[in-house]
Amino acid sequence: MDKPILVFQTDFTYKEGAVCAMYGVVKSVDRSLEIFDGTHEIPHFDIWSASYRLNQSMRFWPKGTIFVSVVDPGVGTSRRACVAKTCDGYIVVTPDNGTLTHVKAHAGIQEVREIDETRNRLKTTEGTHIFHGRDLFGYCAAKLASGIITYEEVGPGYPVDEIVVHPILQPKLSHNRAEGIFEINDPNFGNLWTNLPAKAFMECGFALGDMVDMTIRHGDKVVHHEKALFAQSFGYVNKGETVIYTNELMNIGVATCMGSFCETWHVDYGSDWTVTFQK
Amino acid sequence: MDKPILVFQTDFTYKEGAVCAMYGVVKSVDRSLEIFDGTHEIPHFDIWSASYRLNQSMRFWPKGTIFVSVVDPGVGTSRRACVAKTCDGYIVVTPDNGTLTHVKAHAGIQEVREIDETRNRLKTTEGTHIFHGRDLFGYCAAKLASGIITYEEVGPGYPVDEIVVHPILQPKLSHNRAEGIFEINDPNFGNLWTNLPAKAFMECGFALGDMVDMTIRHGDKVVHHEKALFAQSFGYVNKGETVIYTNELMNIGVATCMGSFCETWHVDYGSDWTVTFQK
Amino acid sequence: MDKPILVFQTDFTYKEGAVCAMYGVVKSVDRSLEIFDGTHEIPHFDIWSASYRLNQSMRFWPKGTIFVSVVDPGVGTSRRACVAKTCDGYIVVTPDNGTLTHVKAHAGIQEVREIDETRNRLKTTEGTHIFHGRDLFGYCAAKLASGIITYEEVGPGYPVDEIVVHPILQPKLSHNRAEGIFEINDPNFGNLWTNLPAKAFMECGFALGDMVDMTIRHGDKVVHHEKALFAQSFGYVNKGETVIYTNELMNIGVATCMGSFCETWHVDYGSDWTVTFQK
Repeated sequence: MDKPILVFQTDFTYKEGAVCAMYGVVKSVDRSLEIFDGTHEIPHFDIWSASYRLNQSMRFWPKGTIFVSVVDPGVGTSRRACVAKTCDGYIVVTPDNGTLTHVKAHAGIQEVREIDETRNRLKTTEGTHIFHGRDLFGYCAAKLASGIITYEEVGPGYPVDEIVVHPILQPKLSHNRAEGIFEINDPNFGNLWTNLPAKAFMECGFALGDMVDMTIRHGDKVVHHEKALFAQSFGYVNKGETVIYTNELMNIGVATCMGSFCETWHVDYGSDWTVTFQK
Repeated sequence: MDKPILVFQTDFTYKEGAVCAMYGVVKSVDRSLEIFDGTHEIPHFDIWSASYRLNQSMRFWPKGTIFVSVVDPGVGTSRRACVAKTCDGYIVVTPDNGTLTHVKAHAGIQEVREIDETRNRLKTTEGTHIFHGRDLFGYCAAKLASGIITYEEVGPGYPVDEIVVHPILQPKLSHNRAEGIFEINDPNFGNLWTNLPAKAFMECGFALGDMVDMTIRHGDKVVHHEKALFAQSFGYVNKGETVIYTNELMNIGVATCMGSFCETWHVDYGSDWTVTFQK
Repeated sequence: MDKPILVFQTDFTYKEGAVCAMYGVVKSVDRSLEIFDGTHEIPHFDIWSASYRLNQSMRFWPKGTIFVSVVDPGVGTSRRACVAKTCDGYIVVTPDNGTLTHVKAHAGIQEVREIDETRNRLKTTEGTHIFHGRDLFGYCAAKLASGIITYEEVGPGYPVDEIVVHPILQPKLSHNRAEGIFEINDPNFGNLWTNLPAKAFMECGFALGDMVDMTIRHGDKVVHHEKALFAQSFGYVNKGETVIYTNELMNIGVATCMGSFCETWHVDYGSDWTVTFQK
C-alpha cells in the first residue's frame, strides 16, 4: 500500500530556507514520502485562517493523507503538540491551539494524541525551541507516514473534549431573511465568504436570479448597503458589479466581478463583520 | 509507459486553499500522477499572460505533458471548456477564452474537444459553479492523464478555427530599422520582451556590440528614448544602464542591469507600447 | 539506488514561466528525477542571501542531494559556472560568484569543477545567454543526477582556493559581553539573526532568563538600545516585546513577539549592523 501523502500548511512563506529545511527532514526520514504544499501563506499567527484552510481542502485528498499545519505563535511554550485523527479518515499534525476548530466541527475528531518529544523530536537540533515545523511536526509526521511509528507511538492520548477550539458563529435564518458573518476572505481575488450554507440560504426563499438587499455592518455601523444579484457565477454581472454566489464550499459568498470586493468596499472578515440578506 | 506529467498554471496564487484542493482532486483520481506548479501567479484575469506563459515553457517539457491553465474570468458562463492537442505533442486543458492564442500561433493546434461536463465533472461539488480549476479542468485532466478516459472521451470535437484567439501583432522590419511592440514583461526582474525575433533583428543589420537608437512610444507619445548597447547579457553594461539583448525565447528584450527597466522608465507592455530600434 | 534529489533556489520567483521551463528541462533529461523548491524568492542579485540559505537548509537533506543555486547577476559573462562537492557529502551547482561562501566556511568544499559548456549546455537554446538556470545549471545538474555524466565529466577541476568567497565576520566574545553583526534576517517574520553561536554566547556568561542589555549600531550610530529577555522562545515575552533567543541554526537571534523586529526598529542586516549584548 502507498504511504500517505504529506500536505503542509504554514505561515512561513517561501522567502527563506525554513520550508526547505523542513522538507529535507521529511526526505531524510524516508526518501519515498510524497510532499505537497498546501499553502505557506497563511497570514502570520492567524490560527483561525489555518483552521479554515485545513477544512477547506482536506476532503479533496485521498483518505489517510496527513496534514501538517504549523501556525504556531506559542512555539516552545506549554501548548500541546498533537496528532488528531478525523472521523472521515485523515490525520492532522499541529499545535493544539485552535487549528482544529473547523475540522472538529465539520468532519469531527475521533482521537487525539500528544506528541512525545522524548521520542518523536529531531535529535540533531536540540537546543533550539523555535522551529517545531522542522524539529517536531514535520519529523513526527514523516515517521508516522513512513510507518516507523504507529499512531499509538506518537504519544499519550487525551480527551477530544480538551482540544482547543474557537467559537464558530451560527447564522440566523428566517423567511426571506438570512443573517450571518463574513467568516473568511479569499485573499487572492478579494471575495468574502459568509457562514451561510447555500442550501439553508435558498430554503429561506432566495433563488438564483433574485436581486437581494444586502447590508454589511462592522459592529453596529452599516458600512455597505446595496441590492445585488444572486447568480451562479461572477460573469452574470458586469465588471465592477457585486454578485452574491455559492462558493466552492457551498456557502454564500460576495464578490466584485473582476475586482476585489474587500478593497472596493473596505470590508473584512471576523465575528464583528455581519451581513444581512433580505428579499 | 509513464503517465503524463500535469503542469498547472492559474491566477489563484497560494494565498489560500484553492490550489491545495485542486491538487487533492488530482491525487484522489490517481495517486500516482505527478503534478508541477507552472505558476499560480498569472496576473488576475490576464488571459494574454496565461497564453504567453504557456507558450514560453511548454516546449521544455517531455512530449505528452498535460498543461492545465485556469485563468477564467468567465467561469460558470457559456465559454467552452476544452482540451486541445498541439501539433508538437502536448495537451492543454483550459477554458477556450484566448489562452490558446500563442500556442496555436507557434506550435499549432491539431485537434480540440469540448469537455463533456455530464461525464467529466467532479460529482461531489455539483451546486457550485465558480471553481472549474478543481471541479472540471483539474479533474478531467487527471482522468485523462490516468488513462481513465481517452482523448475522445473528453467530449465532442469542434473545428480548430473556432478556438478563441487574440490578435498577435507582427513586427515591421527593414534595413537598419526594426519596429515592434513590448509583447510581455518579466514581472520579476522588470525586463520587457518585444515581439522581434532575434534572428530577424540581426538580419536587419543589428549586431552584438552595436549602440542602438531606441524609441519607446505609448500610443503616439514618446515616453523614452536612448542609445543602448546590444549585448549578449546584462553584465556587459554597468549597473543601472540599459541593455538590449536576446531573451530566453530568442526574441529581443530590453533590461536595466541589476534594476527594473519597467519601473525606471514607467514602461509597460501591450499593443499600444511600441518600440523602434534604429542603427 | 535512488537518484539524488534536486533542490533549486533562485531569485526568479514564480511570477512567470522561468521556473517552469527550468523544471521542464530537468524532467526532459530524466523523467524519474525528483525536484524540490528550496526557495525562488532570494532577494534579486543577493548572493550573500543565496549563500546563507544554502547553508541553512542543506544539512537537513539526504546525503547526495544536489542543490542548484542560481542567483546570477553575472550570467553570460566570464564568471565560472561550477559544480562543488562539499566535505559532508552534498553537491552544489551554481555560478562561482560567492554563493559558496557559507558552505565552504562551515561544511567545507572537497572538490570543485567548472562546467564544460561545450558538453553540458542545452543545445536547443544556443543563441541566448541570459538564462543559465534553464540552459546550463539545471540541465547539467539533471544529467549528473540521472547518471548520464559522472562528476568528472562535468568539466575540468580547479583549486578549491580559487572559489569566490565573501568575508564572514567573527564575533567578539568576552566575559558578560558579546558583540557581533546581524548576518541575515528572517524576511518573513522580521527577526534578525546574529553571527553569535548560542554556545559561545552562553559561555560568555549569558543564561536563559537573563535580562540582557542590547545595543544596535548602524555604522557608528546607535539606532536601538533596550534591555530584553534571553528566552527559549517568542512566547516567553508579551506580544510586541523584544526577545533574544537561540535560532534554528543555533545562533543568537532577536525578535519581536508576534511582530516584526526589523520593521518596528528599522534595523537591517549586513556587516555595518553591529549588535552588542552586555550582562
